[in-house]
Amino acid sequence: MKNFTSVKDVKDPMLLIREALEFKKDPYLQNHLGKNKTLGLLFLNPSLRTRLSSQKAGQLLGMNVMVMNMDKEGWALEYADGAVMNGNKTEHIKDAAMVLSTYFDVIGIRCFPTLTDRDADYSEHVLNQLIKYSTVPVISLESATLHPLQSLADSISIFETATKHELVGESKQKIKVVLTWAPHVKALPQAVANSFSEWMQRLDTIDFTITHPEGYDLAPQFSKGVKIEHDQQKALQGADFVYVKNWSAYCPYGQMPAVKEDWLLSKKKMEVTNNAHIMHCLPVRRNVELPDELLDSKRSLIALQAENRLYACAVVLEKILEAAAG
Amino acid sequence: MKNFTSVKDVKDPMLLIREALEFKKDPYLQNHLGKNKTLGLLFLNPSLRTRLSSQKAGQLLGMNVMVMNMDKEGWALEYADGAVMNGNKTEHIKDAAMVLSTYFDVIGIRCFPTLTDRDADYSEHVLNQLIKYSTVPVISLESATLHPLQSLADSISIFETATKHELVGESKQKIKVVLTWAPHVKALPQAVANSFSEWMQRLDTIDFTITHPEGYDLAPQFSKGVKIEHDQQKALQGADFVYVKNWSAYCPYGQMPAVKEDWLLSKKKMEVTNNAHIMHCLPVRRNVELPDELLDSKRSLIALQAENRLYACAVVLEKILEAAAG
Amino acid sequence: MKNFTSVKDVKDPMLLIREALEFKKDPYLQNHLGKNKTLGLLFLNPSLRTRLSSQKAGQLLGMNVMVMNMDKEGWALEYADGAVMNGNKTEHIKDAAMVLSTYFDVIGIRCFPTLTDRDADYSEHVLNQLIKYSTVPVISLESATLHPLQSLADSISIFETATKHELVGESKQKIKVVLTWAPHVKALPQAVANSFSEWMQRLDTIDFTITHPEGYDLAPQFSKGVKIEHDQQKALQGADFVYVKNWSAYCPYGQMPAVKEDWLLSKKKMEVTNNAHIMHCLPVRRNVELPDELLDSKRSLIALQAENRLYACAVVLEKILEAAAG
Repeated sequence: MKNFTSVKDVKDPMLLIREALEFKKDPYLQNHLGKNKTLGLLFLNPSLRTRLSSQKAGQLLGMNVMVMNMDKEGWALEYADGAVMNGNKTEHIKDAAMVLSTYFDVIGIRCFPTLTDRDADYSEHVLNQLIKYSTVPVISLESATLHPLQSLADSISIFETATKHELVGESKQKIKVVLTWAPHVKALPQAVANSFSEWMQRLDTIDFTITHPEGYDLAPQFSKGVKIEHDQQKALQGADFVYVKNWSAYCPYGQMPAVKEDWLLSKKKMEVTNNAHIMHCLPVRRNVELPDELLDSKRSLIALQAENRLYACAVVLEKILEAAAG
Repeated sequence: MKNFTSVKDVKDPMLLIREALEFKKDPYLQNHLGKNKTLGLLFLNPSLRTRLSSQKAGQLLGMNVMVMNMDKEGWALEYADGAVMNGNKTEHIKDAAMVLSTYFDVIGIRCFPTLTDRDADYSEHVLNQLIKYSTVPVISLESATLHPLQSLADSISIFETATKHELVGESKQKIKVVLTWAPHVKALPQAVANSFSEWMQRLDTIDFTITHPEGYDLAPQFSKGVKIEHDQQKALQGADFVYVKNWSAYCPYGQMPAVKEDWLLSKKKMEVTNNAHIMHCLPVRRNVELPDELLDSKRSLIALQAENRLYACAVVLEKILEAAAG
Repeated sequence: MKNFTSVKDVKDPMLLIREALEFKKDPYLQNHLGKNKTLGLLFLNPSLRTRLSSQKAGQLLGMNVMVMNMDKEGWALEYADGAVMNGNKTEHIKDAAMVLSTYFDVIGIRCFPTLTDRDADYSEHVLNQLIKYSTVPVISLESATLHPLQSLADSISIFETATKHELVGESKQKIKVVLTWAPHVKALPQAVANSFSEWMQRLDTIDFTITHPEGYDLAPQFSKGVKIEHDQQKALQGADFVYVKNWSAYCPYGQMPAVKEDWLLSKKKMEVTNNAHIMHCLPVRRNVELPDELLDSKRSLIALQAENRLYACAVVLEKILEAAAG
């Protein structure tokens, strides 16, 4: 693996999930791999889970880890090639990427979307300029359109849980996973939903459905071919896993069209599922996106998902370090 | 020791002080104890000494240490159970604590009081919600009402100095320690004073007095049974150690009632003491709280107190790691 | 070496450059030197290269490294001795330096000039107060008037390149190095230019010229005895290395007097040089200070300079640790 920015960078997602679960059994076993290697984590936006899990994942592998909150400790970067830099941007990504490649063996970057310029966001302008000018592997810690480490952690959590509850096996049916839109008080990126959709489609044993209000279609490149059901109750029928997440509209971009129906889940609404496990990537607005009664229930996987962020990042770093070592 | 948030968490404070002084003799001796353990330091407020001494204490024990400035790198947390999170709080402490417990083996947290909501502050709402939802040990790096690592460092400094100057021993009288209020330009928490009072009362060889202007009584639960003397000169008579600290009023809460007398100490005023040692936890407003002539004198213990912050935190981490190891 | 704040702290700059190039051959060879030693990096101003290269240099030597963004994580410091601290300064440098000396074995500090108070800046008030009150070695990570780690990295880059291109040797002429002023959109410190001038004058094999518009003379103590040429084209004739940098005026201090001529370099203007290598310390305002065609050309040394920041800092730490070990 050279870079990790999408499921497209992964040859065999199911194998990677299994390797992550192996890693989890003995987290410090590969501690020699990162000796005298440096992981640089670059944040253009705030982060809790991602920062801490990536920092610790680097330490599991024995790497030195440096965190740079570029927005607070550094300065504004210019991303446009050929720009005459007479404004408020202090350094070009071309030069910053060169410098970071000099000091780091692997770069992780978090760069949120503008939610106002769809073309820039969906071209992954910031992430791709960093990759273009870096000479070392780049890991996305959530980009404008995708959050692949989250989706890998989610996938690990689904298979770990399905195995424990004997939902998988030769004679079993596919696992039914439903991604449902949820209400929120402000416009959020589409990255988690896009990314989850991309990963679910690559896993053979998953039967995947998305449910969302009219007007909240995901970008075609991430939702094409997926079952879409606008009636939440219908979608939930027989579900084994229900992934709950808000996102803003793709069109009109970054907006929050009014929704008439009540999309907030409840225990009552979950009765049509196959006693489904509840998932959310966190942070969650309790009792806005999901009620306490579900988040705190025995079927909630939010703690497992947070834990598996660690092994998602660790297994990706392992693959990258192994590839770099030749 | 499970958590460390007050002297109440310590069975034998004098023994802990002695163990800290043992630790100081060979600071890297216990370097194996923290191998593959992670200390997470969470700051909701600014910090210099506490951050650096805790970070280094973790390293003395061989731990990986991660610092998270939640107010700057993260987002606002919700502390109320059952809240409908449709305001500006991004994540519930319940979920943050669960996540931190997943990545960290020990959590340190600094959370200052509001100084406006006495009930919330004195119930230690923030600290206690973190402890309630954490599954790993929690160390207070100063909470709304107490600063136990500071008081432990102060106690270590008193006994280290008293031993050096032969103020302790079987045939000796008790050591007279006076906590005196000092002027300041803004309203400060009561935590250092509350905490110091709590620790002094637990040490048998200490004869403890508090002196402060009318209107600056500390909360009853921390000052009950302590000698209070409103005449600063009377209080200072025969003192071996004088601890200088400003605090705002407990009632009216967080206010600074006008003080007519001059409470700023001086060499002259110190003449009634037993050539007392001067203490302050820092940061100190020079020539407002304490004059240069005392801070820079040979009787000043401020450097020793700062140094002992290291061993206070290290010995607490040692006890917690030992307890966790069973 | 006790402190490192200027070329004046270095007995034999050429030897230090050679030792840095030795270090570069096997960067982790001296990894034992810093065992159980702590490097504290204190930033009063933003930083990218300096922070990351210093942090990594400490790790190359096996040190524990702590970064403190004093302006964001801490509070405002008072620098005036004897001050009555009743304003907005929370802690005196005297006390902060004492505390930092307690927790750190070596202190690095970045403290930019005010650009309004020339006397304070050129007396290096902030840096010198830290040194005065520290009991451990202090490294300048760029002070009000100098940037010695940058200049050391620049010097290393010049000799590494000159050796590779066989520009040095017994029978060779001196290497011609030209420092040229460049346009910028805002007033910048004079530190990089002052410092570069100071280092170039200490190297025997260098023939050094400064070219700048009228009104942009550097402070006499850093430029005295150096060839000054106001005609950029004349200055560039036969140059082997061209260092490009903006600085604001020394008199009127911190101002940007209007410049009529065009000082932006180009490939065309570089034709009079000896196919010179182009240097810049970064961050660079592309197409304002230097055009893309030069920054991205094969003669650009900006990547090498950034890389050598690492070995500049590492060799300085090595000398300081060796001296401290006796």
